[in-house]
Amino acid sequence: MSENCLFCGIVAGTIPSEQVASNDRAIAFMDINPATRGHLLVIPREHATDLRESAPEDLIAATLLAQSMVSRVIDRLDADGANLLSCIGAAAWQSVFHTHLHVIPRYLDDPLKLPWQPSSGDMDSIAATAQELR
Amino acid sequence: MSENCLFCGIVAGTIPSEQVASNDRAIAFMDINPATRGHLLVIPREHATDLRESAPEDLIAATLLAQSMVSRVIDRLDADGANLLSCIGAAAWQSVFHTHLHVIPRYLDDPLKLPWQPSSGDMDSIAATAQELR
Ligand SMILES: [Zn+2]
Ligand SMILES: [Zn+2]
Repeated sequence: MSENCLFCGIVAGTIPSEQVASNDRAIAFMDINPATRGHLLVIPREHATDLRESAPEDLIAATLLAQSMVSRVIDRLDADGANLLSCIGAAAWQSVFHTHLHVIPRYLDDPLKLPWQPSSGDMDSIAATAQELR
Repeated sequence: MSENCLFCGIVAGTIPSEQVASNDRAIAFMDINPATRGHLLVIPREHATDLRESAPEDLIAATLLAQSMVSRVIDRLDADGANLLSCIGAAAWQSVFHTHLHVIPRYLDDPLKLPWQPSSGDMDSIAATAQELR
């Protein structure tokens, strides 16, 4: 655990999140600035700055959880596809320096371009979507 | 192996590619329409339509190879970061229906936006970059 790390706080439960799934070494929770409806983040519980620094077992656990989240958003949210994205370094749009995988549901003709312009999501709507995904 | 699958052809060697690394279950080779210099694809040798359909051991092998490629592009190409991206479904910009992970080196102030406009890369320059990555 790294002090002052937002995602370590989410893992520890000292920072609230809409968690939707987990395994021994990783958790999945809603992005609060969603690029599309159902946008999730999957992170190893163990702190590492980015994917290069995560131990294989942590990266594997996060990847397998992300794989199941991809299927789940497509099944439960009627998404037409999904992107899995990880950003390594500020030059690659990383803004929280704890390894994370974005699972971004995609909808036919959605206007997504990356990088998206993060803006605060509606928390009630995010909580309702989390419930559909649990 | 799936007939008429471009990436199965690359795995089999019947379609040429600039391969840079491999493990038992996955290979890494240059994207011929690079979004940035050093853009690689990492694929399981085993055919599957997308990441949802790949067996855990194939996805794990591809992910660990991609992790090492992220470090390698940053170290060898003086990249400032990298994105790991997978596209699941046409709505998510998937165009080849064999599971693949993009490793896209990032450079400070590069103009990348996703989706990028694929255009044929210069093959000599791609081959030279592949050599730096082997
Ligand atoms: Zn952390
Ligand atoms: Zn194939």
